[in-house]
This record gives sequence, C-alpha cells and structure tokens, in this order.
Amino acid sequence: MFPNKRMQGMIGKKIHIEMKGERTVLEGVLKSVDDYLNLHLSAANELYNSEKKRLLGSVVVRGNNIVLIHPLNE
Amino acid sequence: MFPNKRMQGMIGKKIHIEMKGERTVLEGVLKSVDDYLNLHLSAANELYNSEKKRLLGSVVVRGNNIVLIHPLNE
Amino acid sequence: MFPNKRMQGMIGKKIHIEMKGERTVLEGVLKSVDDYLNLHLSAANELYNSEKKRLLGSVVVRGNNIVLIHPLNE
Amino acid sequence: MFPNKRMQGMIGKKIHIEMKGERTVLEGVLKSVDDYLNLHLSAANELYNSEKKRLLGSVVVRGNNIVLIHPLNE
Amino acid sequence: MFPNKRMQGMIGKKIHIEMKGERTVLEGVLKSVDDYLNLHLSAANELYNSEKKRLLGSVVVRGNNIVLIHPLNE
Amino acid sequence: MFPNKRMQGMIGKKIHIEMKGERTVLEGVLKSVDDYLNLHLSAANELYNSEKKRLLGSVVVRGNNIVLIHPLNE
Repeated sequence: MFPNKRMQGMIGKKIHIEMKGERTVLEGVLKSVDDYLNLHLSAANELYNSEKKRLLGSVVVRGNNIVLIHPLNE
Repeated sequence: MFPNKRMQGMIGKKIHIEMKGERTVLEGVLKSVDDYLNLHLSAANELYNSEKKRLLGSVVVRGNNIVLIHPLNE
Repeated sequence: MFPNKRMQGMIGKKIHIEMKGERTVLEGVLKSVDDYLNLHLSAANELYNSEKKRLLGSVVVRGNNIVLIHPLNE
Repeated sequence: MFPNKRMQGMIGKKIHIEMKGERTVLEGVLKSVDDYLNLHLSAANELYNSEKKRLLGSVVVRGNNIVLIHPLNE
Repeated sequence: MFPNKRMQGMIGKKIHIEMKGERTVLEGVLKSVDDYLNLHLSAANELYNSEKKRLLGSVVVRGNNIVLIHPLNE
Repeated sequence: MFPNKRMQGMIGKKIHIEMKGERTVLEGVLKSVDDYLNLHLSAANELYNSEKKRLLGSVVVRGNNIVLIHPLNE
C-alpha cells in the first residue's frame, strides 16, 4: 500500500503527528489529506510530554513540515 | 473537505498561523491562498506569548514555512 | 488577490523580507518575482535589530527560505 | 540503479532511516515508497543512541525530512 | 529581469552565496545554474567571518538550501 | 555544464557530501543520481572532523537535505 493510500485509510481515525520544529506533537481526527500530505484535522490537540497541552480544534497542517504520522488505537 | 478547500473556506476570516523558525505566530484576515498554502493576509500581527507584538499590515506568507493554521472565533 | 498577484503589485517598491535561519531581515526594491517567490532585489540591505547592517546591492533570494514579505511605506 | 529503484529493492526488508530534527533515528520494515521518498513502515521503532526507545508500529514518514536510508542486515 | 534570468547573467562571474545551516558562506565562479537554483561553481571557497577558510574547488550546491546570492565586484 | 550533468560526470567516483542538520559529512562512491539530487552511494562513510566515524555501506541520500557536493581526488 502506497504511503498516500495508507494515509487515505486513516481518514476518520485519530492520528498522531510529529512535526519539525519546537512545537511538535499533534493528535486529532484526520478529515482529509492531499498528495503533499497536507492534513485537515478536527478536534486537534497539541501535546507536550505525551500530555494534552492546548486545544486547537480544526487545523490545517502543512505536509512538508511533518516528520511522521501513525494511527492511534489501531 | 480537502486541506486546500478547507483553507478556501477561511477566506475573509481571521486566522492563526504558526511558522517554522523563531519568529513564529501570526494572526490576520485571510485574503487569498494558493495551492502551496502561500497566504495573503491583511491586518496581520505578529504575536509573542499570545500577545500582539508587532503590526505587519498586508503580508505574504510562504506556504512551506507554515506549520499549522486554524481559524479564530469559529 | 492571489499571493503571487499580490507580489507582482510590489514590483518597483521597497519591501521587507524575513528569512529562515539566523541571518534574516532584508529590505530592498523588488525587481522581479517568480512563481516560487524567488526574488530579485536591487539596493538590498541586511538589517539587524531594525538597523541597516550590510549593503548587499543586487541580490537573488531563494523563495522557499522566505518566511514573510510586506511592503514598506504603503 | 536509480535512487528510487534502489529504494524499491528494499521493500519487505528492514531499513534504518535518519531524519532531520531532534527526534531522529527510525528502523522498520519498508512496506512502500513513492517518488518523493515518502515511506510506509511497519513494526517501526524509534532509536536513541542505537537502542530501541519507542515502538511506533505502522508509520508514514515524510520523504523531504529524511536525511539518509540504508538497509539493515544486507 | 526574472530571478533565474538574473542568475544566467552571473555565469562566468564570481558570486557570493549564503546557505542555510551552520556551514554557510561560499564564493566561487558560477559555471551553471538550473531552474531550482542548483549551482555548479568552480574555484569555490568556503568563508568564515569574511575570510577564506577552505578550498572546495568544483562544487555542486543544492538550490533549496540557498538563502541569497549576489555577484562580487559588480 | 548543468548542475545535474555535472553530477552525472561523478558517477563511479568518490564524492564528498555535506548535509543539513547535525549529522553531516558523508563520503562514498556515487552509484546514481536523479533530477532531485537524490543519491545512491556505495561504500559510504560518515565523517566527523574529517575522520571516518561510521561505515554506512549502501546508502540513499535525500537530495533536498544536501548542502553541497564535490568530487574527491579530482
């Protein structure tokens, strides 16, 4: 399964995203993803040391600044 | 809704943008967005610790240096 | 107005550019801009703490390392 | 053999990946790879000082944040 | 003159290049440039505090890691 | 000679590569290169302070994280 097909399979599920830069870990429900791995998340939270730090709600994430993504509770 | 469609829906609204690098948080009214998530904002401010630090006015933001975007007051 | 259209409208004007990395703030007259936001500036200066630090003259700036751009004296 | 052909030859094998940024070394079984070197890994672990630090499981890795990749046990 | 046209006009001339990252300032004769601002330089030197630090000779420089370029002795 | 043509001329030769990020200097024999400057190296070593630090063997290097490349022993 191609990486973007793999991402399509996570739509509607809760995912964990690690970003480049100091502000870094996000979790939320994947609403959509495009070919650049740009993401639209709902109910997104920023995490710090594995704890929820800040509610972001509906967020668009720029794909090129993502390091890795994995599904939660799979 | 695709990430860029989601962005189209924020045109005319006030948005919050987190950038890569040390200077980082911007808020302003989204005037336009292209496929690379390059943004044109009006009435943009730079924030520091959630406070307005500097009025930038009309700003063009390079999409690849954006980490995340969410609407304000939604 | 699309972000690149907005940039076209700044040609011939003095602009302020913030770059990624430690060397960061440039000001100069925008001579041309392409679809990647690569810029050709004339009479460019590097600024440090809002003061002119170094005259660069005619400069080509790589678009993907730009964080934001705004016109001066508008 | 082209770099992406070389990657195709690693499908099904255990690979070692070094990423940009502070969180950095991953190992896992390569499930798929696309033209941007985006990867889908299974049984992925994050390593720290050559020791397994965290089980990530099924992971999508963004190609542009990869520094280098080599096969394990070849 | 478009940014890449501006670069074409520097072929055969000595240029100054500032790169992203800690190793940063290069000078050399521009042999060729492509649409991504990838450069081929001859007689390239790395500079540190405006002094020549290391002779690199013939070098290929990756365009996306360039911050800015300007001609020397113009 | 275009930058990618210049790279083609290094195939089969030993090259020196400087990367973005903290882990940084590689040397190895260039097996192949594509339009993005993604490289396939054999007999690659990581260097630290100009000394061989770690044998990597067969490695794929992501082009966008390369700062510069030059041939060895030319």
